[in-house]
Amino acid sequence: MLQVAIVGGTGYTGVELIRLLSSHPEVTIKWLTSRSEAGKPVASIFPSLRGISDLVYSDLGEQTVEALAECDVVFFATPHGVAMQQAQKLVDAGVKVIDLAADFRLQSLEAFEHWYKHQHACPELLKQAAYGLPEINRDAIKSAQVIGNPGCYPTTAILGLKPIIDAQNADNKQLVESRIIIDAKSGVSGAGRQAKLNLNYAETTDNFNAYGVTGHRHLPEIEQGVHQLLGSKFTHNIRFVPHLVPMIRGMFTTIHLGLTEEASKLDLQSLYENAYKDEQFIDVLPQGEYPDTRSVRASNRLRIAVHQNNDRQEATILVVQDNLVKGAAGQAVQCMNVMFGFDEALGLNHVPVVP
Amino acid sequence: MLQVAIVGGTGYTGVELIRLLSSHPEVTIKWLTSRSEAGKPVASIFPSLRGISDLVYSDLGEQTVEALAECDVVFFATPHGVAMQQAQKLVDAGVKVIDLAADFRLQSLEAFEHWYKHQHACPELLKQAAYGLPEINRDAIKSAQVIGNPGCYPTTAILGLKPIIDAQNADNKQLVESRIIIDAKSGVSGAGRQAKLNLNYAETTDNFNAYGVTGHRHLPEIEQGVHQLLGSKFTHNIRFVPHLVPMIRGMFTTIHLGLTEEASKLDLQSLYENAYKDEQFIDVLPQGEYPDTRSVRASNRLRIAVHQNNDRQEATILVVQDNLVKGAAGQAVQCMNVMFGFDEALGLNHVPVVP
Amino acid sequence: MLQVAIVGGTGYTGVELIRLLSSHPEVTIKWLTSRSEAGKPVASIFPSLRGISDLVYSDLGEQTVEALAECDVVFFATPHGVAMQQAQKLVDAGVKVIDLAADFRLQSLEAFEHWYKHQHACPELLKQAAYGLPEINRDAIKSAQVIGNPGCYPTTAILGLKPIIDAQNADNKQLVESRIIIDAKSGVSGAGRQAKLNLNYAETTDNFNAYGVTGHRHLPEIEQGVHQLLGSKFTHNIRFVPHLVPMIRGMFTTIHLGLTEEASKLDLQSLYENAYKDEQFIDVLPQGEYPDTRSVRASNRLRIAVHQNNDRQEATILVVQDNLVKGAAGQAVQCMNVMFGFDEALGLNHVPVVP
Amino acid sequence: MLQVAIVGGTGYTGVELIRLLSSHPEVTIKWLTSRSEAGKPVASIFPSLRGISDLVYSDLGEQTVEALAECDVVFFATPHGVAMQQAQKLVDAGVKVIDLAADFRLQSLEAFEHWYKHQHACPELLKQAAYGLPEINRDAIKSAQVIGNPGCYPTTAILGLKPIIDAQNADNKQLVESRIIIDAKSGVSGAGRQAKLNLNYAETTDNFNAYGVTGHRHLPEIEQGVHQLLGSKFTHNIRFVPHLVPMIRGMFTTIHLGLTEEASKLDLQSLYENAYKDEQFIDVLPQGEYPDTRSVRASNRLRIAVHQNNDRQEATILVVQDNLVKGAAGQAVQCMNVMFGFDEALGLNHVPVVP
Repeated sequence: MLQVAIVGGTGYTGVELIRLLSSHPEVTIKWLTSRSEAGKPVASIFPSLRGISDLVYSDLGEQTVEALAECDVVFFATPHGVAMQQAQKLVDAGVKVIDLAADFRLQSLEAFEHWYKHQHACPELLKQAAYGLPEINRDAIKSAQVIGNPGCYPTTAILGLKPIIDAQNADNKQLVESRIIIDAKSGVSGAGRQAKLNLNYAETTDNFNAYGVTGHRHLPEIEQGVHQLLGSKFTHNIRFVPHLVPMIRGMFTTIHLGLTEEASKLDLQSLYENAYKDEQFIDVLPQGEYPDTRSVRASNRLRIAVHQNNDRQEATILVVQDNLVKGAAGQAVQCMNVMFGFDEALGLNHVPVVP
Repeated sequence: MLQVAIVGGTGYTGVELIRLLSSHPEVTIKWLTSRSEAGKPVASIFPSLRGISDLVYSDLGEQTVEALAECDVVFFATPHGVAMQQAQKLVDAGVKVIDLAADFRLQSLEAFEHWYKHQHACPELLKQAAYGLPEINRDAIKSAQVIGNPGCYPTTAILGLKPIIDAQNADNKQLVESRIIIDAKSGVSGAGRQAKLNLNYAETTDNFNAYGVTGHRHLPEIEQGVHQLLGSKFTHNIRFVPHLVPMIRGMFTTIHLGLTEEASKLDLQSLYENAYKDEQFIDVLPQGEYPDTRSVRASNRLRIAVHQNNDRQEATILVVQDNLVKGAAGQAVQCMNVMFGFDEALGLNHVPVVP
Repeated sequence: MLQVAIVGGTGYTGVELIRLLSSHPEVTIKWLTSRSEAGKPVASIFPSLRGISDLVYSDLGEQTVEALAECDVVFFATPHGVAMQQAQKLVDAGVKVIDLAADFRLQSLEAFEHWYKHQHACPELLKQAAYGLPEINRDAIKSAQVIGNPGCYPTTAILGLKPIIDAQNADNKQLVESRIIIDAKSGVSGAGRQAKLNLNYAETTDNFNAYGVTGHRHLPEIEQGVHQLLGSKFTHNIRFVPHLVPMIRGMFTTIHLGLTEEASKLDLQSLYENAYKDEQFIDVLPQGEYPDTRSVRASNRLRIAVHQNNDRQEATILVVQDNLVKGAAGQAVQCMNVMFGFDEALGLNHVPVVP
Repeated sequence: MLQVAIVGGTGYTGVELIRLLSSHPEVTIKWLTSRSEAGKPVASIFPSLRGISDLVYSDLGEQTVEALAECDVVFFATPHGVAMQQAQKLVDAGVKVIDLAADFRLQSLEAFEHWYKHQHACPELLKQAAYGLPEINRDAIKSAQVIGNPGCYPTTAILGLKPIIDAQNADNKQLVESRIIIDAKSGVSGAGRQAKLNLNYAETTDNFNAYGVTGHRHLPEIEQGVHQLLGSKFTHNIRFVPHLVPMIRGMFTTIHLGLTEEASKLDLQSLYENAYKDEQFIDVLPQGEYPDTRSVRASNRLRIAVHQNNDRQEATILVVQDNLVKGAAGQAVQCMNVMFGFDEALGLNHVPVVP
């Protein structure tokens, strides 16, 4: 059994990790840490876990590294800037690190420091970290000591673009016009478990709005995904606009593509189906269908629909996932499975909860 | 035109007062006060008011009483304990006071201090204050200097019980068994405009719970309503259990009554219809119908359905209102209309918003 | 592996059965029937099942009994009146039957025919059927050929009352006053997967209402539970009022009890904790806590809180469950586990989905 | 007082027309027609109108034209294809017609018949009809006999594009790249008051999806708006993708524009503010702000925010409205006000309902 620790298990990604890991057949959660809740049973904070988990929050204090070093892998479900303070020592102690925050997502130090306003604490380690999107980066994840678990929006955007960017690279012919518009919509849990007026039920319900139009931290991550991970040979000017949907879980990303003449010779439907035919968690819907977010609720699946319109030289790619699973905790567990040689779907075969 | 002030206009009852008063034909809002938002236009806090209200929040500081004394009536949309600090001076200056918090609801000093853990700042004034439920207490309101605007739950409970308690008193025969069960449900706006984790959208949606089972401050107010305002000749042991519903506005109160043999001779439907036939805001539904909260959304109406079952010697009274209108700001404006001799419905004829 | 069939798998209890059974380690779903959807893959009706289930709806037509007889157990997730047409033949063929509708819930033929307006097709079989509430009726379920799976409301009501009714019987002293008020609230999925105007999103959201006040089919089932299953020595006049909550899943039942003098000598908290200490799915919350429906979302757990107030001689019992799991499909699987000698929680250890 | 009729007042635009017109100071509703509900009081279908409206649904049968001819204006809140059957006779009788469906929206007969699959019943009248968007087409509306009231999505799209298209025309220089992406989101009431499974609460809540990606009827209407009404000198390839949001009312339209070099010399914020400075219902938010749909709930306002990014040569225009008011019934009343020489805001000054 793997010994794992969850650092900072009081947020929504934390409790989702507990949900997933507590029924994972090869995992024992050894430590669950929180300064603010130290000493309290996790079930007192999340009564949904009564009768399921006896875990108690610990404040490991000065013993943090020693204690965590008893584990095989440590998940950081903490705010940005925490994991990078401890990662080097853990790696030195032979422990693998999966950070669900942003400390190891952006490979460019400049980009990180520009967008997150933190100085990076371990730039050397950052260079070795793997971006934790298995469908793109499986080999690197296998051998990595540190994983930067992707942001929720970038997961949908990069997986939604991969097949056509790959095809464009393969043929060395531009298929997609320079501008790519990513109009994304997220459920409220994406904003975290926080006491904020703008997240109050009476403020959020029966309402819809946009945010981050002037620049959202997931934009450089999407750009990195397209230009570095996917290695696009053509430069794309990516526009990313996120919106807040009055729903708990779920993410819906609408990718608007202008197609070149060249692209109209392609059957994008087949292209996408082939690209993902061996991926357990990626489902390309049949021609003409529409995904809805609830079809992946509480599961690690991501579904994609491809709508190609040659008359207008455009395509719309629709991507759905559960932002807390494939967009966060589930993806982290998937990375863990890859890192430790388990079947990638081990402990992740939850049937979506419908209705 | 009446000159009015709203003290503390940053909460939900405050913005609802602004909505109602800004289209009231006999009212000018002279002051809108807030310490935290002083200097800001109300439309910067509530963008819904852009183009509608040019009001700017003031912090009147040491000039508070002098400034407010320029008004005919001051509404306190503040937390409990604020109005009682300023009410006496305002009354001395000839200004009428309507407190939407609890400072002037409970006539009993002991009850107030027990339930609200405040020492009352003006017990003499409390004695003169009128409980602001026009359908029960219209005459006292007409001549009052100070109004304690009722709590939202008590409004539904007292109006739901009035006809049968009145009938019981008139005949001097017990119609209703001693125990009265009031199982009430409120939308989330009733908890106020607050940054609290338990009010976060992702905590509240697709969820239902009870609170205050061990004792809620509206219980003594309901008891006062039944035993003093309605002057019940029979003692009733009232059980009040409130619940939180995942909806923005709306209150639904289910009153469970055990009936005596005597009561089965009565037609409660007619009794209720007669009791309220002259009330503009109280609607008794036809026999057998069910009210829903949206049928009063954003309006000052309160609807009642009466379900009598003589075989089982029981009756169920269902009451709905918009907790922010008839349950708070609308009722306060109705009181103002009564106090100043306007038609009681002036400025309150909003058509419920459906869907 | 057990071979099972689901008759009528297009509703919410049907899809929930598929969710639960498709990951049950001892079960193979052999047949999934539907006349209207025959020939279609289940994943075309429920895209959440894409990649999870290859089942195709069958219309077995004249071969129904023969085909179903290949199974060990048949679940009927059909409207009332269907299971009783086929149950006798299946039993004769040695197949066990679990009906999730009402055909085998009410032991009294008169009660069934009065409330359901159907003549019962197999009164003899009805006599042998067991009421499928394992915490009350485990032994009968073990040996039964036919299970009437309980209604969702009765599950909460009967389990919420069991400890105190049992105590009352044990001491032969009345603890609870004659009138018992059950004020219950259900999420909208309880109304089924139907195209009905009153279930339209824009009709149901931001709204709350009551229904069935004049008589709901779950009342005789609750009465049967109290007076026959629990064998109450004292007669109780039960009042049951259900309400519709704008949430998908979840049921919250508030039981209002008047206590006798005798009852104030009891510690109800301990009484309830002891009563359920060996039950895997029943959780009695610590003194003073409140359950919320999401704490059991998508799981088979039922949580109970006990609020006793001796000063007022009253108690409030709060019960939550997921209406589609412990209130329907989960309970049916639990019964199956009991009938076939599996661990009662086999395949039912889902962690509640929060948020 | 104007005498008005509402044909087909049982849907959401119908009940919204009743809400608005019943408090309009210059209007009397003379007829409210419905075949299915003939003879019933409107308050029996919409209990929210109890005590507010005594209207009874009529089936005028063969007397329809004669009866409607007693009115000054007739609103058709009917499905597509109804108004065009009666409009000519009404116009001949001197009655003005406002159709809230699509019969008179598309000036091109070919476009109409292609998209709506109806043969048009009165092509001559169609030529004279005015597109009822006062901010674009006020003069034509003033003198029109027949109004095609705009679709909800086109209202946001056309008003969101007008200032920049006008500027482009004025300078005769292309400011906006050819491709315009309109990613729009609507509340569920936009789908009408219908019993449909996909609109069931449990299907729609906590969910998000797209529809009409392959071609939505509002696309040709937006194209007509840009190329004919606004008379764009440059051809734009418009992509329109609508989505369904789990909220009752509200529409949010995100317009993604690529800007030319030329455009970066412009201050779009000032351009938009100037364009709408005299419009009572159009509000351009201050630089950098975000609109939310609730800020216009139940009101006729439409709010716009302009986010210009010269570094990336792009702009995002965010537009919100209440789909049932400015997107339907409110706009129709606004047109009526224009047609009959009233102040354009008469009866339309509702304060948005927040929260």
